[in-house]
Amino acid sequence: MGEFELLARVRERLPAAGPRVRLGSGDDAAVTVPDGATATSVDAIVDGVHFRRELAEPRQIGHKALAAALSDLAAMGAEPGEAYVVLGVPPDFDEDGCIELLDGMVALAEATGTSLAGGDVTRAGELFVSMTVVGHAQAPERLIARAGAQPGDTLVLTGEIGGSAAGLLLLERPGVAGAVAAETTESLRARQLEPRPRLQAGLALASAGATAMIDLSDGLGGDAGHLARCSGVALRIEAGSLPLTGGIAEVARATGEDPLRLAVAGGEDYELLASLPAARLDEARRAVEEAEGIALTRIGDVAAGRGVEIRLPAGDRLLEPEGFDQLS
Amino acid sequence: MGEFELLARVRERLPAAGPRVRLGSGDDAAVTVPDGATATSVDAIVDGVHFRRELAEPRQIGHKALAAALSDLAAMGAEPGEAYVVLGVPPDFDEDGCIELLDGMVALAEATGTSLAGGDVTRAGELFVSMTVVGHAQAPERLIARAGAQPGDTLVLTGEIGGSAAGLLLLERPGVAGAVAAETTESLRARQLEPRPRLQAGLALASAGATAMIDLSDGLGGDAGHLARCSGVALRIEAGSLPLTGGIAEVARATGEDPLRLAVAGGEDYELLASLPAARLDEARRAVEEAEGIALTRIGDVAAGRGVEIRLPAGDRLLEPEGFDQLS
Repeated sequence: MGEFELLARVRERLPAAGPRVRLGSGDDAAVTVPDGATATSVDAIVDGVHFRRELAEPRQIGHKALAAALSDLAAMGAEPGEAYVVLGVPPDFDEDGCIELLDGMVALAEATGTSLAGGDVTRAGELFVSMTVVGHAQAPERLIARAGAQPGDTLVLTGEIGGSAAGLLLLERPGVAGAVAAETTESLRARQLEPRPRLQAGLALASAGATAMIDLSDGLGGDAGHLARCSGVALRIEAGSLPLTGGIAEVARATGEDPLRLAVAGGEDYELLASLPAARLDEARRAVEEAEGIALTRIGDVAAGRGVEIRLPAGDRLLEPEGFDQLS
Repeated sequence: MGEFELLARVRERLPAAGPRVRLGSGDDAAVTVPDGATATSVDAIVDGVHFRRELAEPRQIGHKALAAALSDLAAMGAEPGEAYVVLGVPPDFDEDGCIELLDGMVALAEATGTSLAGGDVTRAGELFVSMTVVGHAQAPERLIARAGAQPGDTLVLTGEIGGSAAGLLLLERPGVAGAVAAETTESLRARQLEPRPRLQAGLALASAGATAMIDLSDGLGGDAGHLARCSGVALRIEAGSLPLTGGIAEVARATGEDPLRLAVAGGEDYELLASLPAARLDEARRAVEEAEGIALTRIGDVAAGRGVEIRLPAGDRLLEPEGFDQLS
């Protein structure tokens, strides 16, 4: 397989690029005409670290690589624009595998209005996919950073969490599947293998006054810690209010895990955690429901101080500020 | 080594970001305010494919990864803006190695006015560096694609070629070093290990009316073929006019190679090949000399037709159109 031949095959399969792209894949660089501000993020996934070839179809690997990258744009409240892919291909991954992987990526790109505008393919010892995504906004002030949460703000979370970690357990231990309904098994595995970046919810939250935002890639505990540190505030989360994905209690029981731990430390849910003025909570809820068709849940508050505290219903503190990052 | 700790150490070492960067490394995405048009390119280098850890210092690997990526911006005539790095780190490459690699990258970033605006570090089976670079121009029409060369245009080349291939031979076969002066050995090895992207020359050529441009990463033969194909023209190159790096005749003799072959098929010289109206040749020469301190050499012409022909001084044709890509 020659690099040029593969790239030519890939280019043939790309849908038409978006209006900002003036020169797409196949030159020294892609040329775009951006809006007033761009958000750019890079994210790589490596076989054996972020996925395992024996547990995921090539199509799903391509999907997940782009989904994880786009999730960072969702967390900025940016409109998705262009994606660039670097594919590291080991000797035992053939051209058809590459095409299938890229098909999975192209399908998600089309579904999200993202143009695949460039790429590079290289030989490598193991399969890796390195993505760069560029999102757009009219002005830099429209993009939501991790810093900006204010004491008194309400803390909200899109969708449900814990499903991705439960899905991974189901993939790693097929014997556990008997403990849950077949449909639930499928949907939990899909949460792990084919996460959906919450791009519309991110735009909706930005418009509804989000003061800070982050996507949950490492897990609520760790990612809440990043937001708290960047904003210089404390986050108080009520464990009882966390929206857990259906079925994770059963998976947790069958595997001896704590469902709350799956939800808080599991990671890869790619939901959005945001702070916003309490007065705009209802507006934000409606906007997220309309834009993305998912719930927005109030899970706690922003206070003066440092770190993240997760309070159990009984009144105990599950985790102390600062010590939290060590959990996972 | 934790990813967050390493990233924190890296961020401490970054120089202040350029004026377009409103939010740099450490959030979900970097935020920039671009000019009227952006040129974006991705490029990865992998241990054992594009470099070998036993032949290059970590600092040089970091330099080369960024240099190869920036060379694509040079070939667009874009002003360098931001760079984003994904570092894949194998178990036997320690944190100090990562820092040294990134120091090499930062030094070149500073020298070229590039802001390192984001990154990702991941475990990997082998060392790889995936770069994304973004360059800027006032309008998309100011950027020079591979398409656009016109029959009648003059074909020009910046600097000298063959030095990188000769440098690689000197690195791979230390015994050959005796055949050339120590200073020449050093400078040829540097051409291989620490190439300089011709950013100023690229801007100068764009201003001087370049109609098409490409950087020489694969070698003059192959890259001229890309330019010819994209422009739908034939390129006629006079082998006798090619500016060969000093010392490659001696290296070629000592290794049984053909110096012309080193120059034409060797690759990684990262010089620029451009077409421009013959009437603007003198202006372009002066502009490149002033901007980058290197020569611009007329090496041939653009004609109607297809493919690349390289004519030897005796009148023989070294290579036929279309068959050229197979040389390397």
